[in-house]
Amino acid sequence: MTITITAFANSLDQGQGLARDMIVRWALEEVGQPYETRLIPWADFKKPEHRQRQPFGQIPTYEEGDLVLFESGAIVLHIAAKSEALAPSDEAGRARVTAWVIAALNSVEPFAQMVIQLKESRAEALLNSRLSALSAWLDGDEYLEGRFTAGDLMMTTVLRELVNSGTLAKFPVLDAYRQRCEARPAFGRALEAQLKVFRDNVPA
Amino acid sequence: MTITITAFANSLDQGQGLARDMIVRWALEEVGQPYETRLIPWADFKKPEHRQRQPFGQIPTYEEGDLVLFESGAIVLHIAAKSEALAPSDEAGRARVTAWVIAALNSVEPFAQMVIQLKESRAEALLNSRLSALSAWLDGDEYLEGRFTAGDLMMTTVLRELVNSGTLAKFPVLDAYRQRCEARPAFGRALEAQLKVFRDNVPA
Repeated sequence: MTITITAFANSLDQGQGLARDMIVRWALEEVGQPYETRLIPWADFKKPEHRQRQPFGQIPTYEEGDLVLFESGAIVLHIAAKSEALAPSDEAGRARVTAWVIAALNSVEPFAQMVIQLKESRAEALLNSRLSALSAWLDGDEYLEGRFTAGDLMMTTVLRELVNSGTLAKFPVLDAYRQRCEARPAFGRALEAQLKVFRDNVPA
Repeated sequence: MTITITAFANSLDQGQGLARDMIVRWALEEVGQPYETRLIPWADFKKPEHRQRQPFGQIPTYEEGDLVLFESGAIVLHIAAKSEALAPSDEAGRARVTAWVIAALNSVEPFAQMVIQLKESRAEALLNSRLSALSAWLDGDEYLEGRFTAGDLMMTTVLRELVNSGTLAKFPVLDAYRQRCEARPAFGRALEAQLKVFRDNVPA
């Protein structure tokens, strides 16, 4: 089956290989999987056609038959699941690899980007652009993929970080989505379990 | 099989449920899986015993028999893989859920945290603490999990972002690890494929 990725047509970094299609190209090379590349001109990243593939208007995307994937981390995990070259085939070994992929993306990169971006003072504009894109994706739908999944669980968790600052209230579609997910009985049971611990451990 | 998670014993957020064991509790509640909780006192998070479970000295962790997992995103994906409650059972549907879990953690949360943390001006200290922890985990080993996996691929990708600023040079173990991974033939082929596009598309 033909695999097609999307990539930038021109270099933003003077050829240092930092554009994120590198992640997917590298993974496909490790497993020996040929692929085709669809180059997206600058003018087209934010257009609806590309946002159907990538809700945030970014690269890379990955197409394999009817499957359209985004997020380089998810694409790498999808490729890794098919080959011993990038992950062991046992369930526990695969889970450890997933832990490290997500550690890179969530425990290390955000801090790297914070320092890099701080110098540009663009932090709030970047956040608002991500939230606007997410709101546009969700508008009219109850969940990200038609039904409640782990994706909604994780996204709600991140959005909850933005309640206290008042940021989320500026995005009513996202705030309603957060409240819809928080209304789930499972969320309530989880919160009660966490709060019970804290009540039981109040310093005397 | 008994599942044990680690969590804070005391609330940092006046009981708002923002501590990240909430993510795992919520996922376990959605699939109806009972669990036990091991509470970690403040004094013990940075000790070697907990860093064996969680290299960055954070919560939550997840134990199921011999499997010890960290990163709430990886734990959620592991739980989701076992139940239709959190993800479809077909491969394509699961990959889409993975995309959204990682979108939350890597396309949205970093920008949220940037804005939140900017106000505290702690960005560089936070980054250095993550890099020190990663260096300590890796010291003496070639790869994160004994052999090259998708975890190394993703972690190298993130570390490459820190070369130009000179930050990575301050962590020789990590810089050597990055260079070891970049020396892989697959990395070279991927970089050449990306650079060829840019050479072919140089504006006239």
